[in-house]
Amino acid sequence: MTPALNALPDQPLFQRFVVAVILLNAGILGVMTDPDLTPRTIRLLSFVDDGCLVVFTFEIVLKLMGQRLRFFRDGWNVFDFIVVSVALIPGTGTMSVLRAFRVFRLMRLVKSIPSMRRVMVGMFAALPGTGSVAGVLLVILYVSAIMAVNFFGEVDPENFGDLGVTFLTLFQFLTMEGWPDVARPVMQELPYAWMFFIPFILLTTFTTLNLLFGIIVESMEQAKEEEVRDAMALQGVDSSQESEEVRLVMVEREIRQIREKITALTVRMDGF
Amino acid sequence: MTPALNALPDQPLFQRFVVAVILLNAGILGVMTDPDLTPRTIRLLSFVDDGCLVVFTFEIVLKLMGQRLRFFRDGWNVFDFIVVSVALIPGTGTMSVLRAFRVFRLMRLVKSIPSMRRVMVGMFAALPGTGSVAGVLLVILYVSAIMAVNFFGEVDPENFGDLGVTFLTLFQFLTMEGWPDVARPVMQELPYAWMFFIPFILLTTFTTLNLLFGIIVESMEQAKEEEVRDAMALQGVDSSQESEEVRLVMVEREIRQIREKITALTVRMDGF
Amino acid sequence: MTPALNALPDQPLFQRFVVAVILLNAGILGVMTDPDLTPRTIRLLSFVDDGCLVVFTFEIVLKLMGQRLRFFRDGWNVFDFIVVSVALIPGTGTMSVLRAFRVFRLMRLVKSIPSMRRVMVGMFAALPGTGSVAGVLLVILYVSAIMAVNFFGEVDPENFGDLGVTFLTLFQFLTMEGWPDVARPVMQELPYAWMFFIPFILLTTFTTLNLLFGIIVESMEQAKEEEVRDAMALQGVDSSQESEEVRLVMVEREIRQIREKITALTVRMDGF
Amino acid sequence: MTPALNALPDQPLFQRFVVAVILLNAGILGVMTDPDLTPRTIRLLSFVDDGCLVVFTFEIVLKLMGQRLRFFRDGWNVFDFIVVSVALIPGTGTMSVLRAFRVFRLMRLVKSIPSMRRVMVGMFAALPGTGSVAGVLLVILYVSAIMAVNFFGEVDPENFGDLGVTFLTLFQFLTMEGWPDVARPVMQELPYAWMFFIPFILLTTFTTLNLLFGIIVESMEQAKEEEVRDAMALQGVDSSQESEEVRLVMVEREIRQIREKITALTVRMDGF
Repeated sequence: MTPALNALPDQPLFQRFVVAVILLNAGILGVMTDPDLTPRTIRLLSFVDDGCLVVFTFEIVLKLMGQRLRFFRDGWNVFDFIVVSVALIPGTGTMSVLRAFRVFRLMRLVKSIPSMRRVMVGMFAALPGTGSVAGVLLVILYVSAIMAVNFFGEVDPENFGDLGVTFLTLFQFLTMEGWPDVARPVMQELPYAWMFFIPFILLTTFTTLNLLFGIIVESMEQAKEEEVRDAMALQGVDSSQESEEVRLVMVEREIRQIREKITALTVRMDGF
Repeated sequence: MTPALNALPDQPLFQRFVVAVILLNAGILGVMTDPDLTPRTIRLLSFVDDGCLVVFTFEIVLKLMGQRLRFFRDGWNVFDFIVVSVALIPGTGTMSVLRAFRVFRLMRLVKSIPSMRRVMVGMFAALPGTGSVAGVLLVILYVSAIMAVNFFGEVDPENFGDLGVTFLTLFQFLTMEGWPDVARPVMQELPYAWMFFIPFILLTTFTTLNLLFGIIVESMEQAKEEEVRDAMALQGVDSSQESEEVRLVMVEREIRQIREKITALTVRMDGF
Repeated sequence: MTPALNALPDQPLFQRFVVAVILLNAGILGVMTDPDLTPRTIRLLSFVDDGCLVVFTFEIVLKLMGQRLRFFRDGWNVFDFIVVSVALIPGTGTMSVLRAFRVFRLMRLVKSIPSMRRVMVGMFAALPGTGSVAGVLLVILYVSAIMAVNFFGEVDPENFGDLGVTFLTLFQFLTMEGWPDVARPVMQELPYAWMFFIPFILLTTFTTLNLLFGIIVESMEQAKEEEVRDAMALQGVDSSQESEEVRLVMVEREIRQIREKITALTVRMDGF
Repeated sequence: MTPALNALPDQPLFQRFVVAVILLNAGILGVMTDPDLTPRTIRLLSFVDDGCLVVFTFEIVLKLMGQRLRFFRDGWNVFDFIVVSVALIPGTGTMSVLRAFRVFRLMRLVKSIPSMRRVMVGMFAALPGTGSVAGVLLVILYVSAIMAVNFFGEVDPENFGDLGVTFLTLFQFLTMEGWPDVARPVMQELPYAWMFFIPFILLTTFTTLNLLFGIIVESMEQAKEEEVRDAMALQGVDSSQESEEVRLVMVEREIRQIREKITALTVRMDGF
């Protein structure tokens, strides 16, 4: 294998070609959802779909050859590898569930366009910082689900019969969608059920909002910080890790020292 | 054509007259929606409506004569031109669809009132910056739609029969409106369908919120920046492009240099 | 009338007494909503209610005597005056609509507790700044309503029959509540109706969020500014009208001047 | 009792053991919601559940012995004490309501994991600051509820019959869930009912958003302030109570003084 082939995946022209193939593949997978296609059209579309898969496989093989095991250090590469491998396993063609996962290949578009990639990375990067809020939310949901089964399991077995359906019902409450349709019949049997439902809605809505905002604000701040660092690099200024407020305090301290020195200077001048 | 006529569209009195005509036109188009109007009233209202159109046409012709092709460089002018032209095409009176588009003329009100115009411009100006989040959302929607057709197309053809209705159903999920009414029957057939629905709701709600906030925060910051620039211009200070944080770093550096100079000065004084 | 009586409404003890009467009145008006009260209980409650009204009237008369026409310069006083006057008009007892407005008297509680009063004032103070966003939203709603009547008036007269019901339906769309129940039947007749519904939901949701956030952020910033001003006053520093960013620029300029002076000083020292 | 036993609750290994027991207890309480368990399985699960309770009781007794009455000064300890005591009262086993409250024991998980504990503390700490907004919201709700009973009590007794159901209906309006299903039938009888419903939705949605954001922003700022204080402590800088803006003003004042001193120095130099 020549070095030229190894370098191929990094060349802009090839990358643009891969994006075009992903878009073509997206179109074909979309058309193939039409239930009224003739068998001939399906055969033709499947053929082009296979062609796209060949291109993706070729790209990954080239990258694998160029980077060897380093290839698997990048999460995006691992994602590519899994998504393409699944489609290559023989016999998957008959399993409709795995067939459906072929569509994930289109997510490679996000990876291939830098600005969309940054959005995705930003969203993932913001996740760990809010893990503890998500944890609190999960504990609240679990405790509430067990209480709901105990309280309402006999009155409304369809919505609160076991832990599984109760989780679904509580998620429905969390989205506030159709909650009165569930709560009102229960309250006809148990008039004090509102003492569970209303605090649950208030508490989980608030925690969820808190969680979402935590992630959004976090990711916005990270984006802004990066901008500031870039602007500083352009000015030839060392980018420091300190926050704006800490630096303001440092400036204050330096100014106080300057004043003391000038006062000393003035005093010495008086001595002349 | 006299120069006086050319300058007419820029005169405050004429502009106020045009706003009044738009408001009159708004009232008439509103009254005309009443299905119980007598033919005579309709004739009368149509006559006044035509009168308003004459005023708008006159205004645009004047502007076109004054500015010639420069007229089309301003997006608002192009909007005015299209909206008024559509109403002038003969025969459109019988096509109810194009008749309905006459109402867009009232959007000229937004253009005519500076503060509302600024709101509109701000919203449009903030759009490109969030294009990549919108792109990620679209890719997620497209991939989800294809998966949903493959998974649920046979179980619930009304909501997931083809790509078109699936997009509508997923948009309904995105607004979280009535999603349990769609999801619960599907889950009776396919108990694991929640593994698609719940992640979909979580992911798209979060991405949509992220998108909306991106636009809102962006447009607020732009408005604030403009205010700061105006305040600086009033103070006779050159408005710089640097962010507050970069400038704070520059101040730090200057202060450090001042301290060094003063130290040098003190050392020299000691030499006397 | 003695000066002691004039000063009464400003005394803490009297103010606390009025708050207690408002709370008592709130309790009574709440109990009176019970449809199963005996006529005797109603008579008793009405009697206490009248007693509360006497206290409120007495308070307002005292204030009016002390402040004369200055009384009406404060919006809260005008609100008090109207709310108490309405209840005093004879014959209003039989008009159930005006009876219901008696309840507004309880809003006086907000006025009487300083921290709640500040919240209310902050919300009102933030309103004018977002008037132009509200204006844009109203124009969009009006234009959409006329279009909706023209497009869907014949297909679904119940929801889009005239401008009145259409406004209500569009407000329902704005809250995203039950929109698929309205949109789906219309789309069975007019398959392209989604080209109206989906952009309408996206555009108005976004504008509404923009409006709400504008008001909330504005009112938070005003509260914060007030805090800063108070903190500065405590430090004996003149509170300036300039924003933080403008002041940072001024500091930069002053520092540059200091450096120039020190450089000049150093040069002169070299001259010795 | 040896000192080693007293110190046990503070040892990392014991703390990890307690977390493991809480998780085990969570799993068992979850499994016990299954209505199809055999009596033998229930006996077995109850036995393990009792075992968990023994561990919790042991932990609390140890802490109580070590800290005596100081134990009750920490809110988390009080919570632990109540939750474990309830389960120990004999006879509670037959009262299904109190049985359900056993689940609260799982909330101890939040307490045991420091990062989740901080989230909970932050949420509680932010509550008092927004008490006045909550107060305004409650007054609006109460006044609206009384008005709604008076206006709509006879037309729709199911939703507005007495103060209790009206509060529930208004809470449903606040979540905007299914409001058209309630409002439309009422409006068929009372066409002007929208003059109550629409302002109510606008006003309460806005106040609720204001309230939620107040809490979220407050708690975020507190978290950020803590971070800044930690960063300053690391730099060996005294953390001051002043806000960034106040400090900027102080820096301005010091710089002005420095300039004056340098000017004076220059003038003196001229005198040589």
